[in-house]
Amino acid sequence: DIVAAIQAALTPADQRLRGRRAIVTSGPTREPLDPVRFLSNQSSGRQGHAIAAALAELGAAVTLVTGPVTLADPPGVDTRHVETAEEMLAACRAALPADIAVCAAAVSDWRAAAPAPGKLKKDADATPPRLELVANPDILATLAGLPADRRPALVVGFAAETDHLLEHARAKLARKGCDWIIANQVGPGTDTFGGPDNTVHLIDAADMESWPTAAKTEIARRLARRIADHLETR
Amino acid sequence: DIVAAIQAALTPADQRLRGRRAIVTSGPTREPLDPVRFLSNQSSGRQGHAIAAALAELGAAVTLVTGPVTLADPPGVDTRHVETAEEMLAACRAALPADIAVCAAAVSDWRAAAPAPGKLKKDADATPPRLELVANPDILATLAGLPADRRPALVVGFAAETDHLLEHARAKLARKGCDWIIANQVGPGTDTFGGPDNTVHLIDAADMESWPTAAKTEIARRLARRIADHLETR
Repeated sequence: DIVAAIQAALTPADQRLRGRRAIVTSGPTREPLDPVRFLSNQSSGRQGHAIAAALAELGAAVTLVTGPVTLADPPGVDTRHVETAEEMLAACRAALPADIAVCAAAVSDWRAAAPAPGKLKKDADATPPRLELVANPDILATLAGLPADRRPALVVGFAAETDHLLEHARAKLARKGCDWIIANQVGPGTDTFGGPDNTVHLIDAADMESWPTAAKTEIARRLARRIADHLETR
Repeated sequence: DIVAAIQAALTPADQRLRGRRAIVTSGPTREPLDPVRFLSNQSSGRQGHAIAAALAELGAAVTLVTGPVTLADPPGVDTRHVETAEEMLAACRAALPADIAVCAAAVSDWRAAAPAPGKLKKDADATPPRLELVANPDILATLAGLPADRRPALVVGFAAETDHLLEHARAKLARKGCDWIIANQVGPGTDTFGGPDNTVHLIDAADMESWPTAAKTEIARRLARRIADHLETR
């Protein structure tokens, strides 16, 4: 019928991820200090959302777990909205099993040890509160370290670095136990956080590929195709 | 001519603030911990932006100083974009002299004593960094405390409180030296931060008016009319 014909025409010919399940994290997390204040970061979610969309285009069943962003949910993607790192990890666990995990979210490394139940008052003496931080769960390392029967076959992390990008990315690959790291440069002088373009390097245990600067949507499609290649040749 | 006729038809009849200058602050501030992480809060800027627009509708020349928000700049308003409390104060000072100052921004009370020039690394031992905070400048108290020849005739602050709303608002009025406080309830169970509606109380040294819950745009128009009333009767 007409609807099926239109759908077929709109479906990319490459459906190599059909039957695969993917989890993608995206955006920042927000870690509350009290009911109104939080610790967060500059991540816009543009790269993570584009990756979720690109995996879905290749036929994967994608769960996108996203922190607070101003982006629309990608069409055809099961999108779960969370605030904190702990909520993000719980949503990722709930989305298992999966063949692919791409951790593109900029998860806050730390959270307040004890968020205040009421708004912290500014003291008349202006003595700032002592802000005790504790480490958040490491979502990438957690997914990469799952027992073999639960671990996604391919676990991909991101490294947003302001300096010594490749050295730090390779150390992260080893430390997290993931399969690939997508390393990109952020910070002053780059437009990576929030901008439309990205310059990345794909790093695995053996190799490093430097990709030309491209739109985040194009980086996402290239990554999705590389993931499909990888899963075919395992 | 036709353009003038259309402009006249679109201009509200009430132009009582023509010739008056207003400064409005709006949105959150972001206080960097390093090039990617920051301390911020849930403010959407909806109330502050609506107030800037409402004052402009009554003919005022409005400078809106806003932190990072996802809202469009209001038409007919000179909008300045800032990130930190210190930048916000500098932009307010640069907009002086003014007859009216409405401080609707949710300014971060504290900032990192020494933001890191490079991205803070997560230690292998996962020892969180010690986050030393210092007090930010108090924009409302600064504007309210300007010498008489520089101080706006009417300085209005906001009090976002999770508990003991009126008691805290009155204390804030005295402490800041401002003329009015608009007190509203925020936090769990209210939809004030980011929502379309607001429930406020207008508090001055003598009186307290409780306004019915209304759209933030309507609260803004009511406040603008009250400001025009006040400046006429001084």
